[in-house]
Amino acid sequence: MPQPLPPVSVLGLGMMGSALAAALLKAGHPVTVWNRSAAKTGPLVAQGATPAETVTDAVAASPLVIVCFTTNDNVTDALATVDLTGRTLVNLTNGTPAQARALAGWAEKQGSAYVDGGIMAVPQMIATPAAYILYSGDEQAYETHRPTLAALARTRWVGTDPGRAALYDLALLTGMYGMIMGVAQAYALIRTENIPATDFAEPLHAWLSAMLNGVVPGMAEAVDSGQHLTDVSSLGINQAAFANFIDTHDDQGVSPELFVPFQKLLDRSVAEGHAADGLSRLVELLKK
Amino acid sequence: MPQPLPPVSVLGLGMMGSALAAALLKAGHPVTVWNRSAAKTGPLVAQGATPAETVTDAVAASPLVIVCFTTNDNVTDALATVDLTGRTLVNLTNGTPAQARALAGWAEKQGSAYVDGGIMAVPQMIATPAAYILYSGDEQAYETHRPTLAALARTRWVGTDPGRAALYDLALLTGMYGMIMGVAQAYALIRTENIPATDFAEPLHAWLSAMLNGVVPGMAEAVDSGQHLTDVSSLGINQAAFANFIDTHDDQGVSPELFVPFQKLLDRSVAEGHAADGLSRLVELLKK
Ligand SMILES: NC(=O)c1ccc[n+]([C@@H]2O[C@H](COP(=O)([O-])OP(=O)(O)OC[C@H]3O[C@@H](n4cnc5c(N)ncnc54)[C@H](OP(=O)(O)O)[C@@H]3O)[C@@H](O)[C@H]2O)c1
Ligand SMILES: NC(=O)c1ccc[n+]([C@@H]2O[C@H](COP(=O)([O-])OP(=O)(O)OC[C@H]3O[C@@H](n4cnc5c(N)ncnc54)[C@H](OP(=O)(O)O)[C@@H]3O)[C@@H](O)[C@H]2O)c1
Repeated sequence: MPQPLPPVSVLGLGMMGSALAAALLKAGHPVTVWNRSAAKTGPLVAQGATPAETVTDAVAASPLVIVCFTTNDNVTDALATVDLTGRTLVNLTNGTPAQARALAGWAEKQGSAYVDGGIMAVPQMIATPAAYILYSGDEQAYETHRPTLAALARTRWVGTDPGRAALYDLALLTGMYGMIMGVAQAYALIRTENIPATDFAEPLHAWLSAMLNGVVPGMAEAVDSGQHLTDVSSLGINQAAFANFIDTHDDQGVSPELFVPFQKLLDRSVAEGHAADGLSRLVELLKK
Repeated sequence: MPQPLPPVSVLGLGMMGSALAAALLKAGHPVTVWNRSAAKTGPLVAQGATPAETVTDAVAASPLVIVCFTTNDNVTDALATVDLTGRTLVNLTNGTPAQARALAGWAEKQGSAYVDGGIMAVPQMIATPAAYILYSGDEQAYETHRPTLAALARTRWVGTDPGRAALYDLALLTGMYGMIMGVAQAYALIRTENIPATDFAEPLHAWLSAMLNGVVPGMAEAVDSGQHLTDVSSLGINQAAFANFIDTHDDQGVSPELFVPFQKLLDRSVAEGHAADGLSRLVELLKK
């Protein structure tokens, strides 16, 4: 007879928490769910989850408690008066490394093991091979619950410093936000000439994929070696092109606001004598 | 007997111009080269190019003249006193749509056909399948010289408005600059914990590729349909995460300067009532 799978409680049933709870249900775990506004439990109860009346009941229901709120403040707010003794709290709320370290200390005082996680996926990717979650903190608790966590997404352990998952997460999100700025701006620009964004999606995707293949490893090598001189594309030539770039936005009636600090940084890089270096030099200039 | 290939003159032998001239030589064209500082002709002459003493001589040598300088000002400066009658000028210097339109008018007065181009490649990609060049302007001249231009990179005709190639080019570059900002910032962040950038390159590449696959078509569809409501990731949740994002940069001693206007734009989007919309809404907000 197959062993029954361990029970899990999921607190926070926003877009992401709902996807997490649904994945655990689909994998066959008994799942208790709680959400501040109770209405959001409905679809999950329909999929087989048990609704908890209170957050205290939800925590009491399972040794593994997965939390996914808007911010980390919500975690201590919601759990302030709840007995966490003997639980493992896996916190998948987005936060800073400093917040994760503080929460780990707080959870320990409450008698709970703490694992922090960074979800590298949108809800629609949960339980697909493209998704993974970064984990750090209490390694023993993580190892105990890894088979359960694997139902959410591929697991990636990054260390016992509870802040490490958040650091990786935020570094990856940084990359994503840059990409999003670029894509949003590209569509804003193209639409000024009544070109549908969907017509431009394929060339934009092809171009960004090609650039990604070169820039991500190329910049990493330059940064690690400290060799920033380039035979590809210099800060000088990028600075020269950038004026056209800003002018075009103005000409086309699109705000260049998202790119103004980048222009200033290019200007500074050239003023400080780095005109012949590649864009990898900017990594050094971002250090405070 | 095979027909000899048509002669081409290349003006401007920087990193890009040198790559263009080398590709034409390799394809078997007779190539005349000119550069403001004569020293840069050396390697191309070694590959079989004919050096021109003056820019006038270079233009006289071939019906097709390819120009690749730093900025479009350099084009009118360098060619101010040169007879262009009967030539086709293919200008691959980076510039704005407005500059391209002005140059087309100027070239016509000089008796020359004008084709503007935007190179979607770094020099190392020239003459590889990954590279392409956007062209717009005089369609007949373009068709005449297309077999020659194909030696540089795949050709992509985008219309008779001479400014169109520059618009596409700049929209694609916009996307790239966003991506570069994100990648540079991610490496700056990760290195504060002494993690080598090369260790982070693979997860960063995987993550950005996955996001690119979703964001580029997803945002295009939302923008064209005007349906910005999301079940993926709302402006509200991104705004909440963004404060962590900026705090982490401060905590880790990395300047968040490149992302401050994006935070302001997220704040504005929520203040204007778009908290439940997806990031595609930002495309609308960038219109002036
Ligand atoms: N969506 C994504 O693509 C994505 C990707 C990776 C990571 N994340 C992270 O996952 C977390 C949740 O994101 P989401 O997209 O699911 O957001 P969401 O749909 O806005 O859901 C937010 C959840 O937090 C709850 N909450 C807020 N304040 C609370 C409080 N004081 N006490 C108790 N519960 C509270 C909300 O409860 P109510 O229903 O009662 O308001 C709701 O369940 C965020 O940290 C986000 O950064 C999201
Ligand atoms: N590198 C890339 O990845 C890339 C990619 C796409 C497009 N582009 C565009 O291609 C163009 C050239 O870039 P690059 O990387 O080859 O730059 P580069 O290596 O700095 O070369 C610039 C060239 O312009 C010439 N020049 C500058 N001012 C001039 C003037 N007043 N009169 C005559 N010649 C002048 C320079 O001559 P001297 O040698 O005498 O200084 C040199 O040959 C730029 O518009 C750039 O945006 C470059």
